Amino acid sequence: MPNPTAAMLVIGDEILSGRTRDANMYHLAGELAQRGIDLCEVRIVSDVQARIVAALNDLRAGYDHVFTSGGIGPTHDDITADAVAAAFGVGVDIREDARAILAAHYQRTGLELNAARLRMARIPDGATLIDNPVSSAPGFSLGNVHVMAGVPAVFQAMVASVLPGLVAGAALYSQSLTIPRGEGEIASDLSTLAGEYPDLSIGCYPFQRDGAFGATVVVRGADKGQVDAALVKLADLFPEAVA
Amino acid sequence: MPNPTAAMLVIGDEILSGRTRDANMYHLAGELAQRGIDLCEVRIVSDVQARIVAALNDLRAGYDHVFTSGGIGPTHDDITADAVAAAFGVGVDIREDARAILAAHYQRTGLELNAARLRMARIPDGATLIDNPVSSAPGFSLGNVHVMAGVPAVFQAMVASVLPGLVAGAALYSQSLTIPRGEGEIASDLSTLAGEYPDLSIGCYPFQRDGAFGATVVVRGADKGQVDAALVKLADLFPEAVA
Repeated sequence: MPNPTAAMLVIGDEILSGRTRDANMYHLAGELAQRGIDLCEVRIVSDVQARIVAALNDLRAGYDHVFTSGGIGPTHDDITADAVAAAFGVGVDIREDARAILAAHYQRTGLELNAARLRMARIPDGATLIDNPVSSAPGFSLGNVHVMAGVPAVFQAMVASVLPGLVAGAALYSQSLTIPRGEGEIASDLSTLAGEYPDLSIGCYPFQRDGAFGATVVVRGADKGQVDAALVKLADLFPEAVA
Repeated sequence: MPNPTAAMLVIGDEILSGRTRDANMYHLAGELAQRGIDLCEVRIVSDVQARIVAALNDLRAGYDHVFTSGGIGPTHDDITADAVAAAFGVGVDIREDARAILAAHYQRTGLELNAARLRMARIPDGATLIDNPVSSAPGFSLGNVHVMAGVPAVFQAMVASVLPGLVAGAALYSQSLTIPRGEGEIASDLSTLAGEYPDLSIGCYPFQRDGAFGATVVVRGADKGQVDAALVKLADLFPEAVA
């Protein structure tokens, strides 16, 4: 059975404006890889409802799961819940169970559950809440779309809440070797090796370090024996390679 | 006149597999912001031709410019040139000017211009070469699509080759304040401020540091006077804010 597929949608202009370097994509990619859920595509769009809706409808039709980050806070630029509701053609309103979670949290912390904070209880009709052990305000899942916060600590906590409930796939086994030669020197042998192991993914990641070119070759596959065998061949071909 | 718009397409499974944290997106976003070209969308797709073609055709129809990174090296998993040619419905073959650049480079470095390296001279019909002062193998522009390497040092050099030739927009002037309060405390005032300055973009970026919540408010706009005026109001509203 093929692995489940996934896409991620990052919402907000934090990355697009050049202000911030991504953290959530990197975290989610690693978590999904461990669970054998294949992350096939990522999109980043700004806080414009039409763009969010178009991306959501593309991605939820194309992949088993869609994970979103960002835009579910209390401020005027947090429009993700409304965009998700629009994409699914359902209503969105303050929901009692979400309000109760917020009310308990703000009572504990001695802060006021004001109108802005109450916006975080707006949940599209039919959604299931995602637990947020960090700051209480919940995310939600609607259909195959899982909507999470953009603050990395909260995003990570929500990912930890959601992933155990999803069907896992076969996590790929992966090994790598770093070869201190330019890609052009090793490309032909790599191509032959890839031909000999059609079930493996053999990726070549070039780099430049201290003025010298090198390449890290990553071999991935479901079958540990095949990956290990390909790695032995690779080490024979390039004795100067290091693990 | 509105600013030119742009999208970026990152090609390859390096980020999707969780192996690498992005660097090129962050670099391009910063460079475009300085030139007043609005980066509106980013997509990351794996080395699958159909996915690359679909994303390219979507993005080049939707934005003034598309910048791609990755997949133009000498190895079997480098399929970007073919995918771009397929997206535009044009041929792709080894081109003499590109071959001459590679030949000169490998003669200089004493390495062989072998079959794998020669793949890097495969250029879609009608494209213009992009200079690569780091490692010679050129990128190319075809229509509004600018195709660049994935190795960060090479990507950055190619961006520096391409950007001066593009029409610039009005770079946004931007100021920020960091407020040591949760978003929920400041959301109402921010919303009012955003209503008073409809020409400005007022973004709120929450964070959690040492267990405490805070938010950085970024005010962006073409008019420096407006941005500065909004920032003075913001500082009056939240005297505990720091620049």
